[in-house]
Amino acid sequence: VITTIAGGVGAARLLAGLVQVVAPSDLTAIVNVGDDLVLHGLSISPDLDTVTYTLAGAINPETGWGLVDESWQARAMLDMYGGVSWFGLGDRDLGTHLFRTQRLAEGADLVTVTREIAAAWGLELSILPASCDPLRTMVTLAEDDPTDTDTPPLPAGTEISFQEYFVQRHHGVPVSAVRIGGADVALPSPGVLESIGDSEFVIVAPSNPIVSIDPVLAITGIREAVTARRSDVIAVSPIVAGAALKGPADRMLTELGHDASVVGVAALYSGFCGTFVIDVADESRAAEIESLGMRCIVTPTVMRTPALAADLGRTILDAMRGRS
Amino acid sequence: VITTIAGGVGAARLLAGLVQVVAPSDLTAIVNVGDDLVLHGLSISPDLDTVTYTLAGAINPETGWGLVDESWQARAMLDMYGGVSWFGLGDRDLGTHLFRTQRLAEGADLVTVTREIAAAWGLELSILPASCDPLRTMVTLAEDDPTDTDTPPLPAGTEISFQEYFVQRHHGVPVSAVRIGGADVALPSPGVLESIGDSEFVIVAPSNPIVSIDPVLAITGIREAVTARRSDVIAVSPIVAGAALKGPADRMLTELGHDASVVGVAALYSGFCGTFVIDVADESRAAEIESLGMRCIVTPTVMRTPALAADLGRTILDAMRGRS
Repeated sequence: VITTIAGGVGAARLLAGLVQVVAPSDLTAIVNVGDDLVLHGLSISPDLDTVTYTLAGAINPETGWGLVDESWQARAMLDMYGGVSWFGLGDRDLGTHLFRTQRLAEGADLVTVTREIAAAWGLELSILPASCDPLRTMVTLAEDDPTDTDTPPLPAGTEISFQEYFVQRHHGVPVSAVRIGGADVALPSPGVLESIGDSEFVIVAPSNPIVSIDPVLAITGIREAVTARRSDVIAVSPIVAGAALKGPADRMLTELGHDASVVGVAALYSGFCGTFVIDVADESRAAEIESLGMRCIVTPTVMRTPALAADLGRTILDAMRGRS
Repeated sequence: VITTIAGGVGAARLLAGLVQVVAPSDLTAIVNVGDDLVLHGLSISPDLDTVTYTLAGAINPETGWGLVDESWQARAMLDMYGGVSWFGLGDRDLGTHLFRTQRLAEGADLVTVTREIAAAWGLELSILPASCDPLRTMVTLAEDDPTDTDTPPLPAGTEISFQEYFVQRHHGVPVSAVRIGGADVALPSPGVLESIGDSEFVIVAPSNPIVSIDPVLAITGIREAVTARRSDVIAVSPIVAGAALKGPADRMLTELGHDASVVGVAALYSGFCGTFVIDVADESRAAEIESLGMRCIVTPTVMRTPALAADLGRTILDAMRGRS
């Protein structure tokens, strides 16, 4: 089994590449749940859904989240009522949240529900929420955030949930701190530590280091389990040429005092990761990464197409299997 | 103000007639919440929605519940997952439940949320949930209920919620008892007792006496408030020629030891209701009703069209205003 620690879009693309070069049943994805939220009474797990929908070939290709062939009738009604509608819930996507919420209310845990959803989509890889316990990534605003058409103003120092920062406020405001709420008491989902320990090797997907990867590692015991496999851990940089391909990872790194570069991410990962994959655009930084005690692989990492994602998957396999 | 005690479809049709003959702002509907349920984490109030949607001219004319121009994308997904889908949640209708659930979670009470929903539809009448407290009409099965394609078998004596009886099991199984769960601790919504007390007169809509009207009256203080207005209370029989126009009222009356006729309903209402309206089809029973100490009005009561509903509304007005 090969285990991947995953956030949303970037991780989903890499996994979609890996299933082309490894039997899907040999893959396990341990997925961030720090972005999860309860909205309108519904339990929503954005990263789990992005991974599931992408691997099912059902992701909305225009947005990178949500489902293809989506309609928005429920949201139109919410808008008519003046309700909370900053989090885009399509009608088909709602079916997933309704199912998850009902099953959780019936007493099923998130691992079981996630497995049921993946099975309904015909997926063979194992998608594991990092924890079944509530985990909430919280972001502290570094500056006053002025009001927007549908968001009230907030003063500097206010702590808001990741989705309020990311979706409601379009990650447009600088942050001064990130806290993984609940991480001190959350336990890894059943199978997570075993999957890391028994895996042929562990991939850290090209996801946001601060709000996708760290919330997984922050759960009791996971960082230690990954660190114990350090020589078998390979991470793909989510930063290419100083910028995030998607989302605010570059700005967040800078705002939190890190270097928004492959070297900055490698420095964050060097304690638990032995091999670091950077894009050819960052080839000149390879020596700096090696000076952190990591092996550095230079290869195209921008997964514009499924074929490019498969190439990256093959490169990772070669890098980890070709050792000796 | 004229106050109407209301269930779902029959009450909604009568109210749609009344707004044609009385200023809507002079009407208050006190609506049953004993059918309410939480499903998929959503707070669903079927009777409130049927009244609102009908008066908004947005009810699905084919089903009598839900919204016109509805789509079913969320339900198709729920079906794909094998989830609970016996309660039909259309995509537009979901918008209402999402809004209600979110507002309740924010701390608004059901009166406020119901008012907001009605205002969004441009309604001027006052729609009041009978209680803001949880009320759950529970039905005990009189016989074993065999399994169906999507419902497990249940033995005689099992108590299930009204929606499980009505929607999931298509009210196809005899009942031995009905209990209004929570009625002993539920309080009337703010404004309910005042509306009954101050009303010019009180209409009991042609709704199911056992599972629509009684759950309203069972709430602390409401039956007493209505009884105090007995001479100003007019009820329209939901039974015509021994049958309910919709739903299981006739069978439930029989199963619970009542007479499934206008006289059987009148007997249930005679303690709090001074005037009873029956259909021309039941004219021969008028004397029996009068013998219960009630005035009896005989008029067409089957509201096949909005014009017929307005006629019934006019007859009610004449009956209550023409007295003296």
